[in-house]
Amino acid sequence: MRARLTAFAAARDWEQYHTPKNLAAALSVETSELLEIFQWLTPEQSAAVLDDPATGFRVHDEVADVLAYLLQFCHVLGIDPVRALHAKIDRNEERFPVEESG
Amino acid sequence: MRARLTAFAAARDWEQYHTPKNLAAALSVETSELLEIFQWLTPEQSAAVLDDPATGFRVHDEVADVLAYLLQFCHVLGIDPVRALHAKIDRNEERFPVEESG
Amino acid sequence: MRARLTAFAAARDWEQYHTPKNLAAALSVETSELLEIFQWLTPEQSAAVLDDPATGFRVHDEVADVLAYLLQFCHVLGIDPVRALHAKIDRNEERFPVEESG
Amino acid sequence: MRARLTAFAAARDWEQYHTPKNLAAALSVETSELLEIFQWLTPEQSAAVLDDPATGFRVHDEVADVLAYLLQFCHVLGIDPVRALHAKIDRNEERFPVEESG
Repeated sequence: MRARLTAFAAARDWEQYHTPKNLAAALSVETSELLEIFQWLTPEQSAAVLDDPATGFRVHDEVADVLAYLLQFCHVLGIDPVRALHAKIDRNEERFPVEESG
Repeated sequence: MRARLTAFAAARDWEQYHTPKNLAAALSVETSELLEIFQWLTPEQSAAVLDDPATGFRVHDEVADVLAYLLQFCHVLGIDPVRALHAKIDRNEERFPVEESG
Repeated sequence: MRARLTAFAAARDWEQYHTPKNLAAALSVETSELLEIFQWLTPEQSAAVLDDPATGFRVHDEVADVLAYLLQFCHVLGIDPVRALHAKIDRNEERFPVEESG
Repeated sequence: MRARLTAFAAARDWEQYHTPKNLAAALSVETSELLEIFQWLTPEQSAAVLDDPATGFRVHDEVADVLAYLLQFCHVLGIDPVRALHAKIDRNEERFPVEESG
């Protein structure tokens, strides 16, 4: 997947714009486009957002954009996002231990 | 990875807050925390952001948060983000074809 | 101005959607639409963004949206934004005093 | 107010960082800090957010930051935000006319 994205950007000569700063901005903009779909919905409406096919398509499309820019950001900096998340969960399991019930 | 995140949230009884709307907001907030690291940097400084260990740790930590909320959002709606991205690249390859050189 | 905005929303029966949470989300979405205009620009290009009339129109339009949601957010919570900013500058002048030159 | 902000930034030699692009990013980051306060709240909890003094202080503080960066962004580009909003409301009153009853 990452190789496919990188080849896609490289073939179109887009990499000159892909500084980490620009990609962090683009990632933030894409997550706002996802949030925009939900901004006026009640919690109940938000849980049923895929019931409408057109809205469901938009949600999938924005999820794809968010993942694309996250992977591209990680690519230009040489970060492994899955490894970063495993390390974070390890830290959080120490910070927020599950309470044992008696 | 997704199973580990889901188990982490479920064990701590956090799922009641995890409506798609709230998770979309949290995802947007996390990407802004990543952007905050870059907001005053020049393009050149942004490319060297991992050279400082403390800033590098922050970048990895925010990447982990963004991926965590993206996966949690997809989990509660039953979306496969990798499949969504493959479908999007297929569509984009038709919209932005590589220009053939002569 | 605030009275005009409030009357505009009330006349269209939009106030039911205008919880503080929804307005905070909408405000965030609008600032991202402003950021989107700048995301791939160099610092120099960003300083000349009003030179192109169509882009200049978009910038003014997004500034208007940001101000509108900020005022609407403040209206529903009874916050005076100008007073909040004066109080903040007072605090900052103590935190970041101007260095006197010899 | 705008004069006070401009003098504040100029006296601290912050203007070199204040390109329109950087200020648009900072404005977006500040609105996310405001949204963060609301991200896990129910609509009802969000309406009562000022009841807790500490949270109320945070809300006022973030509102001040949003207004500060909005005014600074407008300052560096020479935009009058209030005039931009009046122009936008004029356009919207034509797009979304109030439905007459009777």
